[in-house]
This record gives sequence, C-alpha cells and structure tokens, in this order.
Amino acid sequence: MEKEKNVSGIREFTIEGRNAVIEAFRSGKTIDKIFILDGCQDGPVSTIKREAKKHDTMIKYVTKERLDQLSDTGKHQGVIAYAAAYEYAEVEDILEKAREKGEPPFVFLLDNIEDPHNLGAIIRTANLAGAHGVIIPKNRAVGLTATVARTSAGALNYTPVAKVTNLAKTIEELKKEGLWFVCADMGGTTMYQLDLKGPIGLVIGNEGEGVGRLVKEKCDMIASIPMKGDIDSLNASVAAGVLAYEIVRQRLG
Amino acid sequence: MEKEKNVSGIREFTIEGRNAVIEAFRSGKTIDKIFILDGCQDGPVSTIKREAKKHDTMIKYVTKERLDQLSDTGKHQGVIAYAAAYEYAEVEDILEKAREKGEPPFVFLLDNIEDPHNLGAIIRTANLAGAHGVIIPKNRAVGLTATVARTSAGALNYTPVAKVTNLAKTIEELKKEGLWFVCADMGGTTMYQLDLKGPIGLVIGNEGEGVGRLVKEKCDMIASIPMKGDIDSLNASVAAGVLAYEIVRQRLG
Repeated sequence: MEKEKNVSGIREFTIEGRNAVIEAFRSGKTIDKIFILDGCQDGPVSTIKREAKKHDTMIKYVTKERLDQLSDTGKHQGVIAYAAAYEYAEVEDILEKAREKGEPPFVFLLDNIEDPHNLGAIIRTANLAGAHGVIIPKNRAVGLTATVARTSAGALNYTPVAKVTNLAKTIEELKKEGLWFVCADMGGTTMYQLDLKGPIGLVIGNEGEGVGRLVKEKCDMIASIPMKGDIDSLNASVAAGVLAYEIVRQRLG
Repeated sequence: MEKEKNVSGIREFTIEGRNAVIEAFRSGKTIDKIFILDGCQDGPVSTIKREAKKHDTMIKYVTKERLDQLSDTGKHQGVIAYAAAYEYAEVEDILEKAREKGEPPFVFLLDNIEDPHNLGAIIRTANLAGAHGVIIPKNRAVGLTATVARTSAGALNYTPVAKVTNLAKTIEELKKEGLWFVCADMGGTTMYQLDLKGPIGLVIGNEGEGVGRLVKEKCDMIASIPMKGDIDSLNASVAAGVLAYEIVRQRLG
C-alpha cells in the first residue's frame, strides 16, 4: 500500500507492507530508508533485506509500537519504506548543466550530512551560489525527504542532486573531468589564501565527524574558515555557505 | 511549581501554576512565553497578563488539552510559563566585551528571527566570527530556549545576547557609540563593494519578511549577497554566516 503525503505541497511517499515494498524496489523507485520489525525473519522480509543491501538502502530495526506509530494505514505487516520525495539525478547531469551554462563545473559533495534541515539549507545555498549540483553518498546520509525539499525552499526543483555509492571514487572520476577538490576542515589553509577559481568540487563533512579520512585524502586542498571564537565549529550548512561564497567571490573577481 | 528540564545538559525552566508564575515575574526572572487556558479570566490570571504586558512577554491562549500535554506536574492551574534557559546580557556588556579585547565593536542584530535552530546557529556563527554579542528584540522573536542553547553548540556560554524593546531605538543609541549599521537585503550594494571594516552592527531580518522597514531605515548600508540561482533567498542563518565572514575577511585584510 502506497500513500502520498502532502507536506507544504511537497510529496513524500511511505510504502507499507511486504509486497508493496518489494514491488517498489523492483520498479526502480529510490527507497531512502526501511523500518523493519525487529526479529522478523520470514521469506518476504529476507527478500526486502537483500534488495535493501543491493541498493545501499538504510534499514532500521524497530519495535511494533514504533511501526504502528509510523504507519498511516495500520497495515504495515512489519515493513514501512520511505521513498525519495524527489528523483535523484546522475553525476553526468550535473556536468551537463555546467556545460550548458558554459561555466567551469562547481559541485557540492556532502560527506554524510545527517540532518535534513542542513541538507535542505545546503541545496538552497548550492542553488544561489550558482553551483551546478550536489552529490551525496548512498549510505548513512539523509536522502531527499519532504523535510529536505521544504527546507531547500524550492531549490530541489532546480539543482540536481546525485546519490553515489562511493564518494571517494566519484572524486577520482571527476578529477579526470578536470575538477579540483577542496574540503572544509580545521588545520588547513585559510580559505582566502587558496585559489578556488577553476572547475571545483566543494566537500562538506558530517555534522559531528567532519570529512571522512578516505574522502579527505582525495582532496587537493583543505580550506579552513578563520575561527575567532571560543567554540569548535560552525553549523555544517553555515560552513558550506561561507565556503561557497568565498568561491563565488573569487569567481567574480 | 518550578521544574528544571535537562535537555542535552542545557537547562530550561517551565514554571507551572498561577502563584509560581506571578512570583517568577516579581523575582525578575526572564519569562519568554506563557501559555494560558483560553477563556480564563480570574484575578491571578489578570495579574499574570498585566505582568506579561509590562515585560513584553508573549502570551499564547491554548486549550486545556494542550496545557495538560505541556505540563510536567499535572498541576498547571491554567498557566505554564517558559523561562529563559540562559540569562540575557545588557547591550552595555557587549560594548564592554569589545573594549576588553581592544577591538572595534562587531554586533549582530536579529530583526525577529523566529526559528530556534536559526537563532542558535547564528549565535554560534557570531561567536566564531569574533562578534562581541547578539541583540534580539523582545517581541515575537524566539528567546534563549533550550533548543537555541543546544543549536548554539556552546556559544551561548561565551557570546552575550541582549534583548531590547525597540531595535530601531537601540540602533540609534549605538550610532552614538560610533557603530555603523549594515543590513542584509536584496537590491542593496554587493557586499564585496562595501567597506565593512569599522565598528559595525550586522542586521539580519526575519526568515519570511526580511528586515522590517523601521529598522532598515536606520541602517547606513544595505548589503546584498550575490544570488546566481533560481530561488529567492538563503536560509537566514546561512545569510548571516556569509555576511559575517565578509566582515571577517575585510577586517583581516
């Protein structure tokens, strides 16, 4: 059973029941997250787990009470899936957008942003800073949920978001297209001193842990935002905005 | 009856019951918001309304069901107040902090930020950008709740936040101290072309409506962030970050 929810005009799909979820996988729908009744082990549930693994979909094992609470239909049969409110683009679509505009590519790569409000705000910033798209990893990170769409303030309608299996590998591939990669981290070079003008990928780390080691090793530059205060770090979406606009400033100049 | 809640180590007070709320006002506690049972008209409730008016405290009239839901004690007697999790500073404390550091004052003024996550993220940014404090208006805007404290990631322990009755009047007074005021709005001068080096007040508008007319008229400069995308505006806390770091860049240069 599939249900369309309307949150501020933005669609989010919850899909309830074993067969409905298996069908959704087979039809190629992008499933962001599945809630499965803890301890549930039968055939259809095993199929769902296998499909989820194949598609890198996050599974959460929960109690019956939690499922009942999440359920709209009351007929979840131990399985509720959340499908993307928006369709994902391909990395190639993002490069194509840069070509169309005749601009050097400017891409955001988000290394496991977990908060949907941050993801939405970053997509909004990517749009306004003139980036050609946003790349997110399949695992762990939040997907294009209704909250993300709402927080993006409409930017999701314009800015393509691609989901990739391995961010480090995608960086390797994009380097072949001529992109340079700069990641935001402490202990790097002050951003004002870096040359951020050419085809560029801006890598923003997870809220708590920053940019992962494997991804960081692939980056050409580490940019630091000057920190003049008493605490550690900016909010992830604010840091993304500050860095993106340093790129905008340098490109304008 | 007064109760201390512990949300991620941050205190928020809810005060329940008529006498407790009247006492809290008389002891000088900062009450951010009061929920009153709709239709409740007796003596003590009238006193509370009078005190709330005197202190510009927001009142929300709600049903008994809503109060029961908000109540920790079950003994709200038709009144629940939310007290600031943190104590407010005075505007003078902010100027004093700039003097202590031997720096030209750098102050954030928030014209009715309503989302506690935005307020927290902006206080966090103010701390890291080296601002000496944040000024918010008493009316409408969100106060220093536990959510704000948590989202500020500890910045509330270092960055003073003052609450004023009239933001336009405060701007007038701070001009006498030598501050210049720049507000973020569309249709102004591109921020890179403004001189933002001296003693400065950065004015950030409400999420939906931007900076109010009366406040805008008091500002010396209107700064615009270049918008290269398809949608209207950045998230308020991202815009605050981008502008604050343009000030940081100019001060470093």
